[in-house]
This record gives sequence, structure tokens and C-alpha cells, in this order.
Amino acid sequence: MKKKRPTARNATSNRRPYEQLVIQDVRPSVDGGRHPVKAIVGEYLIVEATVFRHGHDRARAAVRWCPPGEEGFAETPMTLVNPGLDLWRGELRLERLGRYRFTIVGWTDPFASWVEELAKRVRAEQADVASEIAEGIALVERVAKRPQGEAWRSVGALLGQLRHAATEPARVLDVASSQEALALMAGVGPRDDEACFEPDQVVIAERERACVGAWYELFVRSQTPDPARSGTFRDAEHRLDEIHRMGFDVVYLAPIHPIGHTNRKGPNNRLGAGPSDPGSPWAIGSQAGGHTAVEPALGTLKDFDRFVRAAGVLGMEVALDFAIQCSPDHPWAHEHPDWFYRRPDGTIRYAENPPKKYEDIYPLNFDTSDWKSLWEAQREVVRFWVARGVRIFRVDNPHTKPIGFWTWLIESIQAEHPDVIFLAEAFTGPPMMKALAKRGFTQSYTYFTWRNTKRELTDYLTELTSTDMAQYFRPNFFVNTPDILPPILQVGGCPAFKSRLALAATLSPAYGIYSGFELCENAAVPDREEYLNSEKYEIKVRDWNAPGNIKDFITRVNLARRENPALQQFARLRFLEIDDDQLIAYVKSTPDKSNSVIIVVNLDPFVAHEAILCVPPEEVGVDPGGSYDVCDLLGGQRYTWSERNYVRLDPVVADPVHIFRVERASRGEAAR
Amino acid sequence: MKKKRPTARNATSNRRPYEQLVIQDVRPSVDGGRHPVKAIVGEYLIVEATVFRHGHDRARAAVRWCPPGEEGFAETPMTLVNPGLDLWRGELRLERLGRYRFTIVGWTDPFASWVEELAKRVRAEQADVASEIAEGIALVERVAKRPQGEAWRSVGALLGQLRHAATEPARVLDVASSQEALALMAGVGPRDDEACFEPDQVVIAERERACVGAWYELFVRSQTPDPARSGTFRDAEHRLDEIHRMGFDVVYLAPIHPIGHTNRKGPNNRLGAGPSDPGSPWAIGSQAGGHTAVEPALGTLKDFDRFVRAAGVLGMEVALDFAIQCSPDHPWAHEHPDWFYRRPDGTIRYAENPPKKYEDIYPLNFDTSDWKSLWEAQREVVRFWVARGVRIFRVDNPHTKPIGFWTWLIESIQAEHPDVIFLAEAFTGPPMMKALAKRGFTQSYTYFTWRNTKRELTDYLTELTSTDMAQYFRPNFFVNTPDILPPILQVGGCPAFKSRLALAATLSPAYGIYSGFELCENAAVPDREEYLNSEKYEIKVRDWNAPGNIKDFITRVNLARRENPALQQFARLRFLEIDDDQLIAYVKSTPDKSNSVIIVVNLDPFVAHEAILCVPPEEVGVDPGGSYDVCDLLGGQRYTWSERNYVRLDPVVADPVHIFRVERASRGEAAR
Repeated sequence: MKKKRPTARNATSNRRPYEQLVIQDVRPSVDGGRHPVKAIVGEYLIVEATVFRHGHDRARAAVRWCPPGEEGFAETPMTLVNPGLDLWRGELRLERLGRYRFTIVGWTDPFASWVEELAKRVRAEQADVASEIAEGIALVERVAKRPQGEAWRSVGALLGQLRHAATEPARVLDVASSQEALALMAGVGPRDDEACFEPDQVVIAERERACVGAWYELFVRSQTPDPARSGTFRDAEHRLDEIHRMGFDVVYLAPIHPIGHTNRKGPNNRLGAGPSDPGSPWAIGSQAGGHTAVEPALGTLKDFDRFVRAAGVLGMEVALDFAIQCSPDHPWAHEHPDWFYRRPDGTIRYAENPPKKYEDIYPLNFDTSDWKSLWEAQREVVRFWVARGVRIFRVDNPHTKPIGFWTWLIESIQAEHPDVIFLAEAFTGPPMMKALAKRGFTQSYTYFTWRNTKRELTDYLTELTSTDMAQYFRPNFFVNTPDILPPILQVGGCPAFKSRLALAATLSPAYGIYSGFELCENAAVPDREEYLNSEKYEIKVRDWNAPGNIKDFITRVNLARRENPALQQFARLRFLEIDDDQLIAYVKSTPDKSNSVIIVVNLDPFVAHEAILCVPPEEVGVDPGGSYDVCDLLGGQRYTWSERNYVRLDPVVADPVHIFRVERASRGEAAR
Repeated sequence: MKKKRPTARNATSNRRPYEQLVIQDVRPSVDGGRHPVKAIVGEYLIVEATVFRHGHDRARAAVRWCPPGEEGFAETPMTLVNPGLDLWRGELRLERLGRYRFTIVGWTDPFASWVEELAKRVRAEQADVASEIAEGIALVERVAKRPQGEAWRSVGALLGQLRHAATEPARVLDVASSQEALALMAGVGPRDDEACFEPDQVVIAERERACVGAWYELFVRSQTPDPARSGTFRDAEHRLDEIHRMGFDVVYLAPIHPIGHTNRKGPNNRLGAGPSDPGSPWAIGSQAGGHTAVEPALGTLKDFDRFVRAAGVLGMEVALDFAIQCSPDHPWAHEHPDWFYRRPDGTIRYAENPPKKYEDIYPLNFDTSDWKSLWEAQREVVRFWVARGVRIFRVDNPHTKPIGFWTWLIESIQAEHPDVIFLAEAFTGPPMMKALAKRGFTQSYTYFTWRNTKRELTDYLTELTSTDMAQYFRPNFFVNTPDILPPILQVGGCPAFKSRLALAATLSPAYGIYSGFELCENAAVPDREEYLNSEKYEIKVRDWNAPGNIKDFITRVNLARRENPALQQFARLRFLEIDDDQLIAYVKSTPDKSNSVIIVVNLDPFVAHEAILCVPPEEVGVDPGGSYDVCDLLGGQRYTWSERNYVRLDPVVADPVHIFRVERASRGEAAR
């Protein structure tokens, strides 16, 4: 049931200028409505609120909501699911992409209140209830006098029945307490004291890729067999098949724009590049153009378009890196010198975090007096690539730009293209990371890379899934990036690569790897988290079939993700008791438990561990004491399990991971 | 440090129309500032917020606050107490009674940011920092150009020093990084991007009695030696000494107004009172007057005034019952028939909750079209008694009146008399109880009466002390009321009375008993929680020295409360591990642990229980492994305790309660 209410939402007369109905604890809600909640289109959003009033009369409540881009509000009735706590629940079908607004309205239902009191009197066999019956009839008469469209006829009919029965209290009660009569009068009755919660809450309904996706990061220029020649978009096209076969959904490209020459960096971030050094792709802009051009060595815009189409044919999307900074050769550096920070001597200041210097990069001053045109230029960059079919942007260092810029950029782009996804690459303090997500970033990089122990992983995932964050912060668990080669991968070898990949891919519906991970590349700058001979400063040619690669393992994990809806959602995660500090275990289930997956990972890349794993039967939809089969989606082994199960994971001779799908209850149990 | 800022809070120029500084998680705060926080005058209110900005520049934060009844805001700087979480803390001294407003402001401190960066450069021994030094000097020059009162001279001096040192980076840094220079520039520097959190938060600073107090409830008419003659205020005066000796702070009187004659109730709520039946004091109003008169049988208004004064001489306050309802004989019933609910036949409707009937009471219709004069009349009632020196009102059934009425009444009365206390007697669902407290009720009745087991008590107190409720909901734990004689008291005899009293008096800084409790009166209507021959309908003459009374026990408990600050606060409560389900133990401490009290109660009124009690040393301010003395404030026994201690409580031969004060660490331990 749903009906449109007029836009003038406070049109009811006789409204009192004081609080009668109390509406509070509206959920979902981020900071009381200051920031939007995130959801996926097609979902039913469960909305709850506490709604009540003084005295004994009956309250009613409804969700009032407005679809993206519209003005008029529709209304969906809520149900009182917990009378003791005055808790009402309703649901809101998110049918379209974009920003829904919703709020809760509450009012007193005099007809239902009257029916309830009359019922008490009839039960108590009170002798004279004629006056009470007259009151109820008068109530319906008042409604019948107002024109109400279709419902008006029904009100007239109800009135006739009540009048006809008026001398027989039990008959009056029968007529009045029917579900039809109550629903009718709840819908058309007076709402003299209607209250509306403020402010409206906003829900962003996004496409599924906003939540679920396996990402593969690469440098186009490295997709070449010859280190002396830059790889091109055409070369990169040849790799798409393999990336697709491994099961990835998103191909994310390090910046593809022209690279500056002034102060270009050589290998390992050395100042003073040689003539053949390609420079850092994050030093954006040259005589060939800026953020809306492609580096000539990679090909042309047409080649790029072809690459995007080729990925699309395979069901994959291309994500671009949006890094708002300039090489000294960027067209903006001479067209808009006032967009940059200037030193007292008038020169433009390059990026610096003393003692570190980034002589090849000029940061932009987002708070310049000419900020409006600077901001507009950034939006035009996004629009340029959106027009070429790009719908995913990985945003570099958003925490160094004003937070208000992101609110504006994301809102205005998504108003035009609600399918655009922004991933925040903010490796900074928790408050800023949360704040960026609240301002609209679709997904966020996380601290996953630095969470290694069972305790660290459990605490972090509990925070992400069980706090307020679950409403607005969607993680994307990258196992490595061109900037981060975590210590566990440096020392743990292939078992560590497998266990970290399995953790990322099963703990978070969105995760990613940076190319080379599948080859277990782990040469680091000593005592640093950085890659030795980083691809950021040179072309890297790889043998993608080198011995020891874990492409097959990755393929199987991605397949498990694709085939199990339980792994395509985030918040329904429960850690399981397993009595070994190096073994971590958890279960994910769909709400109806039709799909449950149990994951066990050995965090120790060197030694086998074994333990008893406790699985509470209700977590996997099994009756207490019941047994069931599990099937390892990686190795294919099957076991019959119950509440306590033996598990052993030897990283030396096998995969350090089990991904068990729970199969239907075994026949013997089901029959009981 | 504190300074007045002009009222125009957004006067800074160059303000950008987008979010730069982020201010969030302001605490304390109830529902994001929708409702006031509660505090006690004289306290330092700790205020916290998360304040940060993009990039590397330094943020600053301050509490901006406005005392009761004023318009101008003052500012107190905050300290960054957790840089990783951008957590700032400040404090606000509540010097006056009334409603303070406060909020948080944040801004960028360009001088501190410059000092920080210069320090990095000097540490990195960068060769040429002349340009950077010039920037800092320019910054100070800009400030020096603006007239700044006293600080202006200091800025001039700083500028001179910097210019003088300009060619020596290390000296510039010395001058600029001094605490004086940083504080000076933080105070007077530009605040181009100042942001202010909205809305303002409100804190009600109330007097100590709002939080702490032992209440004694009585019917004036029962304070007589002769059941045939109503007790009077003069009679009641004679009982004040004893109530005072027992240690009570508040004498709360059942309604003292004229009692109606129409449909007056006889003993045990019988319809049809005899000529000598006094009727229910809650059937307010007769030819002798309404809510601003006193029942002639109790004496005169002058007698009442004398009673209030006599209580005051003993350091006690008188609390009145504010029950907004009328007997059919109330003057309002004929002066304002439109204030009442009318049946279709034109008669006024009496109170009813079918099958229960209250023929002697007319409820008032607070939503009547003439609501303004009805509300005003209620406020005049409160003002009338306030003018006679009453400052505490126990409000009967507030949950049956519109919640907006209470907001208005309490705010407007407290604007005139911020020392007035309102206690909400709302025995209803949790949402309404919380809502009333949020709308301004100083204290609230609770579910304590129905929380008996260790689990029930622990859960309930944890909710009250550890959730959001601790900010706005102040409990008053009544052990009994004229309406509630809980089952445990009906069956548990004297030990139950003692244990329930000790629980109430030590778990909550405000608690109360209804007279007769000290005599362990426990005759109930069978299978009900109601008193047999309830004092609500008849005069009750008691022998206050009857054998088996627990007046001495009550006296010792109230003395313990008075002598131990730990028992005069609510939220710093920690339950202790004690391995017996009938023994409950907890500790309360002052923030500095100079006063710690450990309470152990045997919940079983019939059988002795013994167990080992674990006391974490940090809870009582003792070093790990240290021992200390405890002194039982009820019996005077002393023990030397450590982390694990044997406890035995036998309700048959002794008190079922220990109230241990923790004494200073014993000599041997202190010397280590």
C-alpha cells in the first residue's frame, strides 16, 4: 500500500504548536541525518523508528519517502513490531539509482483508539455504551463529510453499517474492529496531530558494483614484452582475457595522462631522470595535455576507448585514477598560476613533506580565491571521462583537499550519472576516513593491509561491520598497492599471498590486487613497505606464467565469491571460536541462511596448525545437534560437520585456507 | 584562559561557502543537541569533539559557551588530547544554575602550521629557507596591522624579534616555536576558515539535590494518634525530627489539596464512601478550592508554610505532589467545563481504564481548543507553591499529558526559578520515560522496584549508567510507594526490606521510601502489588517504634551516603565478580579514588550466602597485589583485603548487607 501525499507536507489544520507525537531513533541514519546512508538499488531498505504519544490513544506511523530527482512524497504504512518499545518498522523498495529522501510521520488514530476502548467496555460487559457508540459514529461521520476519492464510498458504507448496528454493542464492535474498517479509517482518518521527523534522511541507492567487485590494478605501460618500449592500450588489451579468466570485475589503471618532463623522477624515485626513464604517472601533464589527455606513449584516446570497450565485452569495467595534481609542465601551470601555492618569490611551490621532496609535482590550492573555476575544472575532468564510458574513479589522496569539495563534486556528478563510483584512497586517521565516506565516497581504502593477527582482524572487522560505519563506509580491501608491500608478504612467501588474498576476498565484498601479486612479487626496499625498483618510476616487464604464480588459486577464490551470495555482502559476518591463535574462522550467510560459507585461514605462513572449530548451528541454519555437509570450494573435499569440527591447515603442502560452502542438512537429520 | 567574542559569531571575512574544518562527535550531547544534557552546578563539564581539516595544516578548537540568560558567547581553548583520533578536550565550569549553551569552533592556525613546517626544514638542514621565513614574517605582519587590544603590542614585539633573527633559521625557529608565541598567535591570528558546530548544545546546571537526596513520603492526615481525627500540618511537624534523625533530605507529601465529595471512594477503593471516610487525596478539589488550596482537615496555608519552615530548619525540603486532575467538585469543573473530556450527551467524562473506573476523578484534556488557558493555569499552580517556598514537585502520571506541555512548563518555570526540581512519576514504557527526562524532568521514577535478581539489577544499572541515558536520565529509586508493595517485600520480611533499601540507597544517589517501610509493613491485597487497606483511602495510625522496625539500619545507611562522596554520584559504578548468584557486589569511587565504597548485598532474605569477592585493585586505587583495609559502615567491622576476599552474609542473624569504605593502603604496602 502506498499513496502520494501532496507536496505541502504540513497542510493539516488544527495543528498544535507543541509536541504531541514523539518520533525518535529513526534508522537507518548517519549522524541524525547529516549524512547519507548507503544502500544498493533493488534492495528493500528496512526503516525503523520509535513512535508514541501520551495517554492511551493509538499512534500510527508511516515512512514518507521521495524518489531520486522528484519532489512529491509517497507514504508506506509501518507496522508496530514491538509494542513495549513503541518500535515501528516499514520498508522502502529502492527501485532506482540515486538519492532517496525519507522520513517518518506519526499521528493519532482516533478510530482505532475508539475501537480499542469499546472492545474493553464490551468485554467488561458494561451496561450503557450508547454514548461511546455515538462517539465512534460521529467520528466516521466527520470523515465521510470530506471528499476522499475512492475511499469515500467505503467510508459511507462503513458509516451505514455502524448506524444500522448502533443499538447492539457487540455488532458495532464486529463491524468496527474488522481489519478492513481499521485500515480504511487509518488511511483516511483525520491527522490533527500529525508529526513529521526532521530532517529528512537521505539514502543513496547505488549499483551492485558499489559494494561488490574484485579489482585488478595495472600500469598500461608495463604491458609490454620489451622494457625499452612502453606498453600501449593495444598491448594491455591482450591481457584482458587473462584478468577476466582470473575472475576480476574491475581493471584499474594507474594514471594514463601525459607525464611531465620537468624534474622527472628516475628509477627508485631518483631526481634527475635519464632520457629513457618514463617518469611517475602521478606527475600529470605535459605539452601533450593534462588530465583530459592520454600519455602519447600509451596510444590515443581512440585506443583508450577501444580498451574500455574490450573490457566491457568481457563484463569488466575500467577504473581510472583521479589524482588532482600537476607536473610543472601541466597546461594549468601557465594558464592558471593562481591555482597553485606560491612562494614569496613568486615561484610555484612543489609538493613537499620535509624531508621528502616531490619536485616533479605541484599540488593545487583548493582554497585559492579562484577556487570556483579550479573546482569546476576538476568536475569537467570527471565529466570528460564519464562521457568516454568510465564509471569508476579511484581518487588519489582525497584527504588533502577540502572535504566540502568532495561533497560538491560527488553530489553533482551523481546527480547526472548516479552510476558513477568513487573510491577514496585516503590512508590517514580514522576521523578523516570516516568523514570522506560520509560525504559521499562510494568505497574506501582501509587499514586491512596492516591488520595481520587474529585479534587485529577481528577487532577491525567488528568495527566495520557492527558499528554505525556499516551504514556508510564500504571497504575495498587491497592486499597490496604500488605503494604498499606489507611485511607479511615480504617474508611469508606464497602461503602469505594466498592467505591474505583469501582474507581480503572473503571478508570484504570489494577487494583488489595490484599486478605482480599473482606472481608473489616481494622484493622490497630494505626496512620499508615499498617495492624495490618500483613500477611507479619504470616499466616492468613480467612473465605472467612464471613458476610459483598463484593465478589458479585466485581464480578459484573469485569463483567462490561469484557463486555464493553470502560473500557478496558485508555486514552479516560472524567470527567463530577456534582454539588456535594462528587460525581465524568466520561464517557469512544470506539473511535466509540459504547460503552459508565458512572460511578458515591459517595466518602462519610457515607452520601447519590444527584445532577444533565451533560452529553455532543457528549461524548456518541448522537445528541444534544437527549435522550437515561442507564442501571446500578450493579443493573440493567434503566433510560431515556438526557443532565441533576438526580443522588442519598446512601452508607447506596445501592451501592455507578453507572456503567451505554449507550444503543442505544431510538426509538423516532432515528426517527427524 | 577565556575571552569574550562578539555576539556576531560568523563575522569573519573571506569565509568559504564550503566545509573546510570538520567538527563532529561533540560530547556531551543528547540526540545531537535536540535535548539538554544534565549536570550539577559547580562541576567542570568535560567537553570533547573531533576536529580536523584536510592536508597538513594545524587545526585549533575551542569551546564557545554562553551562560544562562545571557546572549554573548565566551571561548575556552581546547587541547588536542589524542592526535591520532583528532580528539580535542576542554572544560566548562558551571558556575550558575540554569541552561548553558555551548558549541565547538574550529579553525586553521597558519602560524603554528608554518612553525611546524619550518621546524621540519631546519631539522632536515635545508640550505635555503629564506623564502619560508619571509612567509612566516608576512603572516605576523598581517596580524600586526589589525588593532587587537592588549595582544597587539605582543604581536608587534614578536614581529620585531622575528625580523631581527630573519637570517638565522634556527633563531627564527626558537622565537616562533616558543609557547608564548604559539599561544599568542593562536589567540589573535586570522580565522579565515573558522567553522562552528550546529546546533548549540544545552546543559542544564542544577543544584545538588537534583542528583542526590533521600526522600521520605508521607500522608499528612495519617500523622495523628487518633484514627477518627485527620492528622494536620501541626501534627506532621512533630514527625520531622524523627525523619531528620533517620537521615532523610526530602519530605514528600501526598496531595494536600481539598478532597472532592462527589463519588468519593471508601476504604480499599470502594465506591460509596461513608460520611467519615476521608477519600483519596488524588481526587483534588472541593468547595474549599482546587490545586492552590489545602484540605481544611489538614489545617491552613499558614500551617503549611510553618511546616515548610520547620523542615527547612532541620535542613530538609518539602516536595509536593503535582497531580493534574480534578474531582467533580473542583472549581475548574464549573469554571472551565471545556477543559475536560465531554461525552456526546454533554456530561464530563470521568477517568476510566476499562474495566477500572475512577468515578471520583475527571482527567483534563490538555489538547482542548482552550489549551492555552488550561496550560497557563497549571503553570500558575506551580508558581503559587514556588512562591510559598516549595522547590520540588513530584509529578503524577506525566505520561498522560502531551510531551510538549512538559517542555514548556519546565523550561518556563526554571527560567524564573532554576532551582525547581521536577520528578517524573511515569511508570510506563522505556521510550516515554526517556522522552520525559529528555524534555527536562530533573529526576525520574524507574523500574528499580521490579528489578530483583542479580542479573536484572546488573543489566538495568548498566543501562542507566553506561549508555546515553547517563547524560539526561537521573533515577530516583523508590523501594515502595503507596501504589507498589513489591512481592519481595511481601514475602521476604525484614531482611528483604534491609537489602532493598541498601540497594536503592547505594545504587542511586537519589532514592526514597514511603512511610511504613521502616516498620516493614507488608500486608498486600492477595496476588497484587497493592497495600491492603491502602492509605490512599483511609487514615493510617502507626506506632513508629513498633518492634522489628529498621529505623536504626536506615539511619546508618543514610549516614554512609552522607559521609561518602562516592555514593553521591551515579555513573561511576562497577559491578564486581562474586561467585554466588544471590550475592551482588559493586564498587563506587570518586574520580580520584580518594573515596571508594564496596557494597555487597545478599539478595536471598532467607539463607546465608558466602563467596569469594574479586576486587580489581585499580577500582579502589590500590597497586596490583597491594592490600588495604575495609571498614563496614553498618557494623563497624574492619578487615584487611586484597584482590580476592571471603564474604559471608547471613540475613537471619545480621544485616544482609556490607557497605565497606576502603581505607588508605596499609602501612606495609604503602612503604614498598
